[in-house]
Order: sequence, then C-alpha cells, then structure tokens
Amino acid sequence: MTLGLPDGKQAATELSRLVRRTPVLRVPSLDARARTALWLNAENLQHVGAFKARGALLNALRMSAASRRKGLLTYSSGNHAQAVAYAARHFGVRADIVMPEDAPRVKVEAVRAMGAHIVFAGTTSEERKKEALRIRDERDAQLIEPFDHPSTICGQGTATLELIEQAEIEGVTLDAIVVPVGGGGLSAGAALATEGTDIALHTVEPGTANALAQSLRAGELVAVPPGPTLADGLKPTRIGVLNFAILERRVRSAHTVDDADLKDALVAALLNAKMLLEPSGAAALAVALKGNLPPHYKNVGILCSGGNVDPAVVAALLTESR
Amino acid sequence: MTLGLPDGKQAATELSRLVRRTPVLRVPSLDARARTALWLNAENLQHVGAFKARGALLNALRMSAASRRKGLLTYSSGNHAQAVAYAARHFGVRADIVMPEDAPRVKVEAVRAMGAHIVFAGTTSEERKKEALRIRDERDAQLIEPFDHPSTICGQGTATLELIEQAEIEGVTLDAIVVPVGGGGLSAGAALATEGTDIALHTVEPGTANALAQSLRAGELVAVPPGPTLADGLKPTRIGVLNFAILERRVRSAHTVDDADLKDALVAALLNAKMLLEPSGAAALAVALKGNLPPHYKNVGILCSGGNVDPAVVAALLTESR
Repeated sequence: MTLGLPDGKQAATELSRLVRRTPVLRVPSLDARARTALWLNAENLQHVGAFKARGALLNALRMSAASRRKGLLTYSSGNHAQAVAYAARHFGVRADIVMPEDAPRVKVEAVRAMGAHIVFAGTTSEERKKEALRIRDERDAQLIEPFDHPSTICGQGTATLELIEQAEIEGVTLDAIVVPVGGGGLSAGAALATEGTDIALHTVEPGTANALAQSLRAGELVAVPPGPTLADGLKPTRIGVLNFAILERRVRSAHTVDDADLKDALVAALLNAKMLLEPSGAAALAVALKGNLPPHYKNVGILCSGGNVDPAVVAALLTESR
Repeated sequence: MTLGLPDGKQAATELSRLVRRTPVLRVPSLDARARTALWLNAENLQHVGAFKARGALLNALRMSAASRRKGLLTYSSGNHAQAVAYAARHFGVRADIVMPEDAPRVKVEAVRAMGAHIVFAGTTSEERKKEALRIRDERDAQLIEPFDHPSTICGQGTATLELIEQAEIEGVTLDAIVVPVGGGGLSAGAALATEGTDIALHTVEPGTANALAQSLRAGELVAVPPGPTLADGLKPTRIGVLNFAILERRVRSAHTVDDADLKDALVAALLNAKMLLEPSGAAALAVALKGNLPPHYKNVGILCSGGNVDPAVVAALLTESR
C-alpha cells in the first residue's frame, strides 16, 4: 500500500469539522535568532494540547458505527492516550487506555478526566501492547495505533497541510518544514503533505533517541533503545514500518537536538511567542534556533507539536534561564 | 466629540493590514471552571505582545507624512512604550520614549531593541509627561497618548470588534465581554465595539487600583492613587476623560480582582490554554474563573490583553501553584 498526497487531502476533508485549525504564529524576535522567517504551527492549541487528536479522531471517524460502539482502545503513556480518550468522548463511546504502572499522575488524571477507563500494565511498551491486544480480542474493541497506521499518518498530516495552506494564504511558499519524530506519525504525515512540492522535509529527534536518523543511515529500520531525554514524546524504540517507507523517500535531513537545545527553545517559545510547548513540541523550533538549517531558506514551517508539560519543569527552566 | 461604533469600524478598516488578527481560543477545561463558554481573545500574540500596538499604529497611521517624519513620542513604563517604538519602526521614523529612571531593565531593553531613543526622567508619571511635553515642543514631534485620545481608543477597540466577529463566524453571539481597565483605552474601545448590541460590558481592575469602579460609583472622575498589585499594566491614577465619558454610559458591572485571582488565572491560562499572559492580561479571565459573572451567560468574550511578564514571576507562580 502506498499513501500519497491525495490521502492526506482526503483526511483533511474528513477532519475539517472535528479538529481545530490551529493558528500559525509569526514572531519577529524568533525570526531574528533563526535568521529566517519561521511559521509556527501551534498544535499545542489543538484539542488535548497536541496534534495527536487528529489521528485519533480520524481513526475513530473511519470505523463503522457498530465497530465504534464496541469502544476505542490504545496503549500509551503520553498524548496519544489523551487523544484516544478525547475521540471516544467525542463519539460518545467507551475508551480503554493501557498505561504503564509508573505513568505520571498528571497524565493519568488527564485521561481519567476525559472519562476513559485506565488499565495499568507493567512498565514497558511491550507489556502495554500485550495487554491492549488481550483487551482487543476479549472485547472486539478497535486498537488505535499510535503511529504505524494509514489513518494515523494521514490524520497527523493534516497539521502540515494546514500550515502550508496558511502560508500560501499569506502569499508565501515555504522552503522547508521541520517536524519532530517519535514513531513517525506526524513526520510521515508531513511527508505526504509536502509530496509534489519543493518543500524540503527536515526531521528532528533527540540525539539519545535517533531511530530515524540511524535507520536512514542504515537504509533499513534500526531499533534504537532510547536514552534519557527531556522530550518524553520522542522516545520510540523504532520508527513504524509504514512510516519509514514514507519517510525514507522524502526526508532531506534528519537533525538531532540535545536537552539544552530543547530547554532553550521551550523558554524562547514561552517568552517570545507567548506559548507553552512541551520539550518534544519545541524540538523543531530548537533546530531553527540552533542555526542548523541551510542559510538560503527564507520561510520555514515549524511544527510545534504539543504543550503538555509538567509545570515544575517549566518553572525550573525559567529559573535556570535567567 | 462623541465616538461611536462607526469610528471603531473605521479604525478596523484602517488597521486591517497593520495589526495581527489574533486567534480566539476555546478551552473546554477553562469553560468547565467558569461554567460558561469562554472566547479568549489572545492579544498576547499581537505585535509587541499586547493590544497596545493597535492604538499606537492607528495614531501613527493618521498623522500626515510630514508630521510623522518628525518622529513619534510617548511616555510610558510599559507596553505602550514598546507599541510606539514598534509603530515608529514600522513607519521608518524616529521614536523617543520617556521612561522612569527605575524602569525594569527588561522593558528598557525591549524598547531599545526596537531602535527607539530612550529618555529617562524621574520616577513619577508627572515627571515623565513633563519631559515628553518638553521634547514635543522642542522637536515638534507627535505625542501619542496612552489612552485618553480618540485614535488610541478606536485602535484598541478593534481587538473587541475582531472577537465579536470571530464568535459570529462560529455562529455565536456573545452575551458579554470582560475587559481589563488601566487608563481605559481597551475598555472604552470595547464599549464602542459593543454599541448597539446586547453584549454586556464587564470591566475589571485590581481592587487596589479601582479608579473606574470608584468613578462610576461617584458619577464623576475620581483619582485613586494605586496601591500594590501584580497587574502593573492596570495602575492608572485616573481614567481618561474621554474614556470615562464612553465607559460610564456602557459598563454593566465594574469588577475587581486581587493578586491571588490574577495568579490563579495566569497559571490556568498557561497550563490549560497553553498561552502566556502577564498578570494584567489575565485579569478578565480571573473574573470568569472566580464565578463572578451572571450565571445565565452562555458565551463570554475574554480580552487577554498582553503577555509581557518577567520570567521570574512566572517561575515563582508555577512553583507556588503546585
């Protein structure tokens, strides 16, 4: 199966009344630092505070009503959990979310607040997936994949489609898009959205969890056990199969950033763009602020993917940065 | 002279290519706390991080080219200083900003970064104004009033016009607007924008600097020496003359909030709406979150007026609120 731009556009049509068309922000002081015009796609203002709502909603929308009534199901410790809970609430159906036993209380509470059932299972992704598959078989509920699925990819891609369109409305064709990579949902979606254009696709991962960069170098999927990083949303062990097939034919450059870069970008977004990003959500901005993009780019789209961050982390960063 | 809705609409037409049409945010978790649907006008995302850019630009735009070339001038320790500096840079002319000798370095630097000339004069508003008038006479430069001027009022009013229009695009007629009051520029502009509608105008001031509330009670302008408040943008000694004439015929209710309310609203905006507000900019939200609005309101517009705040203040509030 090959996904392409028409699949991305189809997703945008389906989602048009379900997701927020998030604002695209222009911030001269950040442009000055990046030495290029940045077009900041504020997906931290999306439902549940992250782009993940897009893919979850599209998956749920595409189920038959009968299937949907059996409930939505996923395994996640992060924004995808909230996104599936949100989608279930939107459609008025049950959600079961398998979370790790050591999940941060703030994330557990956010999922619970949306009315989802939480099932705790071990501490590893494998344990969570196993339990999720058990529930799927027991209840015939639909498992919504966090990244390695056509509807997830196409749903996430609508963020990039909107960003490109918004720039075009303002008379600008972007030279490049920078997008953070966890399992590859948002980035593979961005690859579809830029298909047939001259927009260069730049990805970014933590240097300690650079499965895409290593896989591109190897020419095949490589599993990379993630090391420590502030970017808790960008810690897959490997990129999705479908995602990699799309990404490998489209990525111009696979960047990495470290925690210092993420902290700097998070604080810059807060003080200059006046918006709260989580460390993962600030990764693309970090690439631009580091000056790691080709100097001839005049207009660059930045996927600011989410804003769900522990207040204590933000307080510490603001105190550190003074 | 009487200003009305047509003057506000005229200002919107003139400013349409100069100011940002700031996003209007909808945040279910804040709606739940306020028990009403809140429509958050994000003027923290306006040029210079505050609505003040609107009035300054309109003043500058309406000058003759010859007059503008002599330079813009104002006295201010806050966002208005940055706004005038921004307007001068936009039109490529000189700006002189009279600031207090004890102005926070971060604000001085922000004004200087926009290329304005800074003149330090004493520590009181009277000393600053005197020096500004001296410069005006010396150089024949145009003094841009921070609030008590038709163009300033009409310019600031465009924020409320956009908010009302944005809600209407989404099929909603607002029941009320809540707007913070310093000298009365934003609020008098909101009064014009709601003229001829059933939209109730609610204002908010710090309890320690409630010149409007006291003036409305007295039926005439009352000077109120401001006491301590976190809301450094809402500390006038008195409301403008023109502003009061407009406000007194239109304000439904003049609320006050204390520092605890402002802190709560600032943190709620950051963690729930993912946006950074300064304490003054969070005042209107504070009224809604306190539950101080009539319970029959279904849709309420909230003017989130600015986002220029010392990072140390934000860090402290996030740490306190845990």
